[in-house]
Amino acid sequence: MKQDTHIEKSVLDMGEMASGAKLTVPVYFIKGQGKGPNVYIQANMHGAEVQGNAVIYQLLEQLKQLTLLGDITLVPYANPVGANHKNGEYTLGRFDPITGVNWNRMYHFDQESIDHYVEQVDGLSQAQIDEGFQQLLLRNVEQKLDHNQYGLTTGQRIAYQLQKMAHQADLVLDLHTGPISSKHLYCPEYAQNSAKYFDIEHTVLIPNSFDGAMDEATFCPWWTLAKSLNAKGIDYTLERESFTVELGSQELIDLDVAHQDALSILSYLQYKKVIQTTEFTPKKITRYGCMLSDYKAFYSPMGGMVDYLADFGEVLKAGQPLARILRMDNYGDGDALHYISLDHDVIPILHFASASVNQGTELYKVFSKFFQIT
Amino acid sequence: MKQDTHIEKSVLDMGEMASGAKLTVPVYFIKGQGKGPNVYIQANMHGAEVQGNAVIYQLLEQLKQLTLLGDITLVPYANPVGANHKNGEYTLGRFDPITGVNWNRMYHFDQESIDHYVEQVDGLSQAQIDEGFQQLLLRNVEQKLDHNQYGLTTGQRIAYQLQKMAHQADLVLDLHTGPISSKHLYCPEYAQNSAKYFDIEHTVLIPNSFDGAMDEATFCPWWTLAKSLNAKGIDYTLERESFTVELGSQELIDLDVAHQDALSILSYLQYKKVIQTTEFTPKKITRYGCMLSDYKAFYSPMGGMVDYLADFGEVLKAGQPLARILRMDNYGDGDALHYISLDHDVIPILHFASASVNQGTELYKVFSKFFQIT
Amino acid sequence: MKQDTHIEKSVLDMGEMASGAKLTVPVYFIKGQGKGPNVYIQANMHGAEVQGNAVIYQLLEQLKQLTLLGDITLVPYANPVGANHKNGEYTLGRFDPITGVNWNRMYHFDQESIDHYVEQVDGLSQAQIDEGFQQLLLRNVEQKLDHNQYGLTTGQRIAYQLQKMAHQADLVLDLHTGPISSKHLYCPEYAQNSAKYFDIEHTVLIPNSFDGAMDEATFCPWWTLAKSLNAKGIDYTLERESFTVELGSQELIDLDVAHQDALSILSYLQYKKVIQTTEFTPKKITRYGCMLSDYKAFYSPMGGMVDYLADFGEVLKAGQPLARILRMDNYGDGDALHYISLDHDVIPILHFASASVNQGTELYKVFSKFFQIT
Amino acid sequence: MKQDTHIEKSVLDMGEMASGAKLTVPVYFIKGQGKGPNVYIQANMHGAEVQGNAVIYQLLEQLKQLTLLGDITLVPYANPVGANHKNGEYTLGRFDPITGVNWNRMYHFDQESIDHYVEQVDGLSQAQIDEGFQQLLLRNVEQKLDHNQYGLTTGQRIAYQLQKMAHQADLVLDLHTGPISSKHLYCPEYAQNSAKYFDIEHTVLIPNSFDGAMDEATFCPWWTLAKSLNAKGIDYTLERESFTVELGSQELIDLDVAHQDALSILSYLQYKKVIQTTEFTPKKITRYGCMLSDYKAFYSPMGGMVDYLADFGEVLKAGQPLARILRMDNYGDGDALHYISLDHDVIPILHFASASVNQGTELYKVFSKFFQIT
Repeated sequence: MKQDTHIEKSVLDMGEMASGAKLTVPVYFIKGQGKGPNVYIQANMHGAEVQGNAVIYQLLEQLKQLTLLGDITLVPYANPVGANHKNGEYTLGRFDPITGVNWNRMYHFDQESIDHYVEQVDGLSQAQIDEGFQQLLLRNVEQKLDHNQYGLTTGQRIAYQLQKMAHQADLVLDLHTGPISSKHLYCPEYAQNSAKYFDIEHTVLIPNSFDGAMDEATFCPWWTLAKSLNAKGIDYTLERESFTVELGSQELIDLDVAHQDALSILSYLQYKKVIQTTEFTPKKITRYGCMLSDYKAFYSPMGGMVDYLADFGEVLKAGQPLARILRMDNYGDGDALHYISLDHDVIPILHFASASVNQGTELYKVFSKFFQIT
Repeated sequence: MKQDTHIEKSVLDMGEMASGAKLTVPVYFIKGQGKGPNVYIQANMHGAEVQGNAVIYQLLEQLKQLTLLGDITLVPYANPVGANHKNGEYTLGRFDPITGVNWNRMYHFDQESIDHYVEQVDGLSQAQIDEGFQQLLLRNVEQKLDHNQYGLTTGQRIAYQLQKMAHQADLVLDLHTGPISSKHLYCPEYAQNSAKYFDIEHTVLIPNSFDGAMDEATFCPWWTLAKSLNAKGIDYTLERESFTVELGSQELIDLDVAHQDALSILSYLQYKKVIQTTEFTPKKITRYGCMLSDYKAFYSPMGGMVDYLADFGEVLKAGQPLARILRMDNYGDGDALHYISLDHDVIPILHFASASVNQGTELYKVFSKFFQIT
Repeated sequence: MKQDTHIEKSVLDMGEMASGAKLTVPVYFIKGQGKGPNVYIQANMHGAEVQGNAVIYQLLEQLKQLTLLGDITLVPYANPVGANHKNGEYTLGRFDPITGVNWNRMYHFDQESIDHYVEQVDGLSQAQIDEGFQQLLLRNVEQKLDHNQYGLTTGQRIAYQLQKMAHQADLVLDLHTGPISSKHLYCPEYAQNSAKYFDIEHTVLIPNSFDGAMDEATFCPWWTLAKSLNAKGIDYTLERESFTVELGSQELIDLDVAHQDALSILSYLQYKKVIQTTEFTPKKITRYGCMLSDYKAFYSPMGGMVDYLADFGEVLKAGQPLARILRMDNYGDGDALHYISLDHDVIPILHFASASVNQGTELYKVFSKFFQIT
Repeated sequence: MKQDTHIEKSVLDMGEMASGAKLTVPVYFIKGQGKGPNVYIQANMHGAEVQGNAVIYQLLEQLKQLTLLGDITLVPYANPVGANHKNGEYTLGRFDPITGVNWNRMYHFDQESIDHYVEQVDGLSQAQIDEGFQQLLLRNVEQKLDHNQYGLTTGQRIAYQLQKMAHQADLVLDLHTGPISSKHLYCPEYAQNSAKYFDIEHTVLIPNSFDGAMDEATFCPWWTLAKSLNAKGIDYTLERESFTVELGSQELIDLDVAHQDALSILSYLQYKKVIQTTEFTPKKITRYGCMLSDYKAFYSPMGGMVDYLADFGEVLKAGQPLARILRMDNYGDGDALHYISLDHDVIPILHFASASVNQGTELYKVFSKFFQIT
């Protein structure tokens, strides 16, 4: 049995509040043997999505007993500005409460510098190409952080610091949750095979289109590079992978469930030869996939109070009710109960966090077209 | 089988918003045969506590098939200002978001006018005393509503309008919920026997001390009257009752559970001879009571992320953990997990709505001393 | 003197809240003689930016005494969801509080349908081209409103309804305010000459780049059309204009200032021959312009409490302080006062609404390069 | 000229947030010569009321050049939980955003222990009585802080720590602001003469009735003691004084105005012989007083958008408009403008922070009966 794995702890400054109070982020680093891919795992970029912190706790508890081939960096509380923003009893954490900008839409991507880089790699080996490209990505982010006199937004300062760490890894896991949600995985289309190593039944496959998120910010550059090189006839194998792992519902900590999720991640890391072990086996479950464009949000056709009926993760047949909406103001002289359904089969994945909705609130997200991942 | 019960619907103006939009409340009234006590039932005074609306829906569905001896008034969406105040995904509804005042602490109570009334009842029958006292309470509230030129707060305008309806009833049920909570009942000490007719295992017994809530605002005057008359040697039987019925957790609508809660309320109404039927039977469950002063809040000794461990409604032995608090910032160089316990047995009733807490947040409410209600 | 101008009032449904309460928007329409351009004016799309409602009041008071050549539609309270969302004492109105999406970034623009239209106009007159294009824009928006079964977001429902009215006009004015702000105008680059008819000293010139706002949603299609036709060698004169008029600071109503702003708008409408009069004269003031890309936000380099020093609308020389930031936590063992300046001359236009800022909060917006509009 | 005044700085822990981040408060202490009364000054107990921090800055800048007879303790950022709670652009700081409890209503007062103390002082000198009573107050607060296993609320932990410092002083100044407000002073009735040494035109005189605020928590015990002793025939002179100093409007820092306010406070401290100087002279202004019961809030009779008309600090004659409320939804078929007035003369002191109000929002606070303080 492995012993004495050293976990290095450091602290990053992530923001200052009005009173001058500093918000910091602990960073845990475990040095591997330099024989496997490096990994970056962060949690809680959205304030209310706290369960990833518990997963990092359980991962550390496991990792300290394992032999690491690659380095692993783990960052809980990645966004302390979001995590500490209580709003009434809940945490208002999906966006900067001052600007409305989603904390997970502020990472950096620069198409132009990739295009420029591709011009310069003729004759280089893949290792050389990779090394140079990683340095480019790091320089780009450092350039943004090392800002001009007009400064950075609160969210950019956080995102760029995290991205700098993530670009140093080969594999990136960004731990999130839905509002009230089943577990699901965001996976780049090219990495579908890796989805089979997580104990997660539902996977959204995402294209090479940057929308500001951490997973995209770390895989889109490499995917773009690979496609450009292949288009030029240069042989290049895309090996980097990034996932957004949706761990279930927000506003919850459950250390026992977190232990299960840690095992699921370790199964993936074992498959990727980050850890030297064979003890982790992915669960035998049926896995479903859905293209991002078929992962649909359903918006409430009316204001009201919602009794969410559809179970997560199971096929809901066309015409079966997703939800019924109570409208007591209509009792007696109208319809007090409205049933909501769709005209095709779907798999519900998550629903809104509250029964009270305005007209136009996102009620459910569903796989509208789905297929088995084998 | 009873048919054609007429449900009368009216609409009350409860507030105006900045755009001039009116917020209204539907009021349902069913006329009884004048042979039983009159009942007032309201729901959703706190914005996030929506399940009572569903219970009123299920009550109406039942009542329209029953024979009523007394009148019943039902008011869902009692506070549309609170119900419509979304704050992020959730509903910020326990207090007026502008002033912080709890919506259920703004009802009216006037000790002095009761003292004055007691001076005047010599020689009157209980029926006469009751009639006169009810008129007094109504006049007092109307006097507050028919305000001076300085006006009323948003919450007073709502509370006084509701209280005016409630004072016309003999029995008052105010339907609430906790944050994340088991069902429980607030019951005046003198009405403990009635608690046995609700399908609710835990009852908080409250003294004759007005703190602004609807239940107190409607039973404290009568309790005070009864005590004063008895002290004067006048024979008087206290028959009015008011309860706050806590239906479970906030932010949820479940029409099936609401059906069960409607049956529980109908069991009480049958016992009180408001409805002419014998079909409803309270469940055979063990019921526990706790004095209000022994119903304790536990405040978090630290900031952190909470894994709530204690089950609701079951005795937690001294030393057993209520919760464990994750503090990832201490991982590696401190204690990342803190277990919270008490030095005596308690029954946990509810806990905070979110895993993320500041130091000093109310984590749990528990029965610290409890007894069986038989 | 003109008499009896008929103001037609109608009401649009804009949303439903959890209690079922409907939020509506009043629409005022004045029929012109069909001899001038049609105008659409809306206010208060952002909840806290209320002064435009007062300007519409003053415009209506003036317009009812004037002769109209074109039709004018005026929509106060354009977004009642935003206007009614109080958050504490203030109005949280720049974005949907549930999703964070800016209410003024949800309008519709479809490049593809424009490209397609341009293919079909050979041989048509400009009047025919305009007529057909306007119908196309209307159909596109109606198509979005006449949604599929997955529905619309709260903000899309509002934006598309407003856009449908705006597309029927030739000139569009969207009345906004800054946080704490001087008056300024957003004007498409091609319409710079029109800026001289408003009593507004500072104008931001915006390019043909759609970012979701009302002004862009209504001028970008026409600008794109004009450019495409000109590129094809077809003679086409761009006559449509849209402006975002920033009336000063949010959270304020001042009917006297609104009267002045109404005169400024009437001066523009007179210039455009919408109203038959010569009584309105733009003020003799020096007007400055700035390209959108030179209109810079300055983000706070630290958390703290800000004493905003720079006056709006006047050139602040390089090195002069924009603000000083108080950090009492540093008093005695650090710098309690930090002065903020830039290394080039700027014109400050607006600043943040509160003295309390986090690191990264937008402190000021300034014209970083500016020129006189003559 | 005095030199080398030593300012001692220490830091108090005031709270922990969900990420574990500590919120601290800097405490500045200047030792006097032990010949004058001791002073406690705090600022920013309500999060948005930040100007007191700037006043403490300016006081420190002055005090370091002065000779102190008594000790002075100054506490800016007294409540960092409130100060750092941004809500949108503004600071939601008057109450705990989780519970709604006003941060300045959580101080401690124990009538019973005072009654008990009065029983025990026969034969003691005033100095001995004072010494013993101060120890009692300190022990009471320490007892609350040294809590039982159920813990303290977030606000109690803050309030009790501050109160412990305040009880060690003879004179207490709690620096606040109104929403949009003129300067005014809350002064205990017995200390009316001291009000003349502040450069503040309007003073609210408050009775001996504890409602949870810092000023009351520190003067009510002494006032109660004095009254009880006098009632017992014991000669006792009440020398302690506490004031809430309302510095103007919230959400603003202005260091120049703060300098003026520092001079005003120094004038009071000179009068009380805390500082050895004669350089400060109160301004020659007419000062008005108003009993607390005559300091009236006016609540909006309707929802709408408010043009606040009445100037602060000047007598508004009966019938003159306080404000006009715009209701564009009524334009054309109702009254779009409503004027608000009272039937007696008042002095407006402050108004609500936003133009957008619900029905029942507190619009203005006014002196309804007032008199000159001479």
